[in-house]
Amino acid sequence: MSTPFMAIEWKENKIFLLDQTALPAAENYLSYDSISELVVAIQLLVVRGAPALGVTGAYGVVVAMDEAARKGLSAVQLEQNIDALRDARPTAVNLAWAVEKIRKEVGRGRDAVLAAAQELASDDKQSSTDMGNIGADWLINTLGAKPLTLLTHCNTGSLATTGTGTALGVIKEMHQRGYVKEVYADETRPLLQGSRLTAWELMKSDIPYRIEPDAAAAMAILSGRIDAALIGADRIAKNGDSANKIGSLGVALACHAAGIPFLVVAPESTVDRSIATGSDIHIEIRDDKELTFFKSIQVAPIGAKTFNPAFDVTPAKYISAVITELKVYEIAKGVSL
Amino acid sequence: MSTPFMAIEWKENKIFLLDQTALPAAENYLSYDSISELVVAIQLLVVRGAPALGVTGAYGVVVAMDEAARKGLSAVQLEQNIDALRDARPTAVNLAWAVEKIRKEVGRGRDAVLAAAQELASDDKQSSTDMGNIGADWLINTLGAKPLTLLTHCNTGSLATTGTGTALGVIKEMHQRGYVKEVYADETRPLLQGSRLTAWELMKSDIPYRIEPDAAAAMAILSGRIDAALIGADRIAKNGDSANKIGSLGVALACHAAGIPFLVVAPESTVDRSIATGSDIHIEIRDDKELTFFKSIQVAPIGAKTFNPAFDVTPAKYISAVITELKVYEIAKGVSL
Repeated sequence: MSTPFMAIEWKENKIFLLDQTALPAAENYLSYDSISELVVAIQLLVVRGAPALGVTGAYGVVVAMDEAARKGLSAVQLEQNIDALRDARPTAVNLAWAVEKIRKEVGRGRDAVLAAAQELASDDKQSSTDMGNIGADWLINTLGAKPLTLLTHCNTGSLATTGTGTALGVIKEMHQRGYVKEVYADETRPLLQGSRLTAWELMKSDIPYRIEPDAAAAMAILSGRIDAALIGADRIAKNGDSANKIGSLGVALACHAAGIPFLVVAPESTVDRSIATGSDIHIEIRDDKELTFFKSIQVAPIGAKTFNPAFDVTPAKYISAVITELKVYEIAKGVSL
Repeated sequence: MSTPFMAIEWKENKIFLLDQTALPAAENYLSYDSISELVVAIQLLVVRGAPALGVTGAYGVVVAMDEAARKGLSAVQLEQNIDALRDARPTAVNLAWAVEKIRKEVGRGRDAVLAAAQELASDDKQSSTDMGNIGADWLINTLGAKPLTLLTHCNTGSLATTGTGTALGVIKEMHQRGYVKEVYADETRPLLQGSRLTAWELMKSDIPYRIEPDAAAAMAILSGRIDAALIGADRIAKNGDSANKIGSLGVALACHAAGIPFLVVAPESTVDRSIATGSDIHIEIRDDKELTFFKSIQVAPIGAKTFNPAFDVTPAKYISAVITELKVYEIAKGVSL
């Protein structure tokens, strides 16, 4: 399936990012040639999604080298900038993974680093295709070759990867094969990645969809409207516990109660085999203002405290399977990663 | 506990409503002396919450009589106006219950109808107090006399009743007794009754609280942060299945998974013993625009379809107990209503 936009592009010696904070009302591309600006962009979610953060981090190492050359920074200052990039968002393992992978090439010179970043981006694109095929095969084998109603949370498509996506990549592949009746897209508060981004991608791909409040997912699932739910991941522990956008856990609980498949779709780079279980995953807590204001509109008492974690951790026992670009891990059958 | 505002007040031969769509940014009181305007106000959620809708419906019969007298309407036209008021929102049983109860007095004249409506409002206020005491006793007997962290969804306080509230009334009573550590208030999309209304009431009552996205409730509960969750209800079937604001079901599933109490707090008038189970409860579906726009800000593709039910139904098997002004129904122990 072709994608009519690029979330991340390297050109003119800059990273160009499709500004995901302005979608769907506007399609603006912003360019970055400094690490401090790129770190802020990552934190403001101009770019987001674990695989897309990995690719951004990879190209970011080139930005760091170019900036160091331009400004005459020391080797220590260059390393500090690369550290800042790596640490811009703590939960997404792909960002740190990609930055560290590409950082190893720095000694080989700028062109080698750029080539390595481009190869990582290309591999990411291929991963989407492979996850799409493996996931679609699993759904068809498990539920039969028939049109399905699929639920997803947050955005895991071409805005979150350089390919078709992780969970949304599977949904797009199912659509290509004629097996999508409709997609329920959770709006994904507080930043509405579902209604702003996933709905926009589904519209661009001509896939029938509807948006629902996150709080409606349990009813949609338990009322029999949904055949399977698919989400991405930001970090997966060795036992299968999966950190993903806040709200994923609630979807998993509802799927478990309804007895329908709950799939986590993510590249192998999201699997962190250095951590045994999800309790070791550091969860990013975001700003109160994301909940107390909507843009400039006050929606809570001034000074209200919040509980605003960016992610939750779904225990492996609620996950049917983890799909990567290499294989299906049948978590529900006791397989670990 | 005193309440520094009145959600509903009868004065100057009009219904005065605190405009709940403008809170917390503004405290505006709007007055109504025509049924068509009152029906629109109910549908726009200027007033909401099952008990408050009941009281509004009761006073609304007086408005209908006064309007009929003023405009010279026929008896048939008066009955049609009362029907329109009764049917303004289909899921909340209290509205229809109160309108039908007060309608019976119409033959006795306008002053008798007003007296009956005032008695219904007074009874509603007393119900809050009684539910608060019964619910607080149950929590203390079940979890011990110690400060608790309580989670609630939507708004069930003095903005939803003429007293302290249903679920929030229990929380206020627990606070009076010194047993509230903190309240987690689900923001309650799409209309944010939690962050706009519950947070505002908690602030006015000096009860420590924080707002969370609805999608964070499962994590808050399963991570051990919450001791019990309390919600209201819009209609309760004979077997205990309870319709309440969309998202209640997800909270119930998480409480069930975590093994903590999940309480439904509502007056007896919310119990509809004419329906055996929740599958007979008609669920109001609301407008797409509540999800695709935030005020005037576009947050989804133009033309996006939605799944926007106002309520979901929590099966009795996930409910620990239903608390009314009369007693505790221990649903989890097999008691029906």
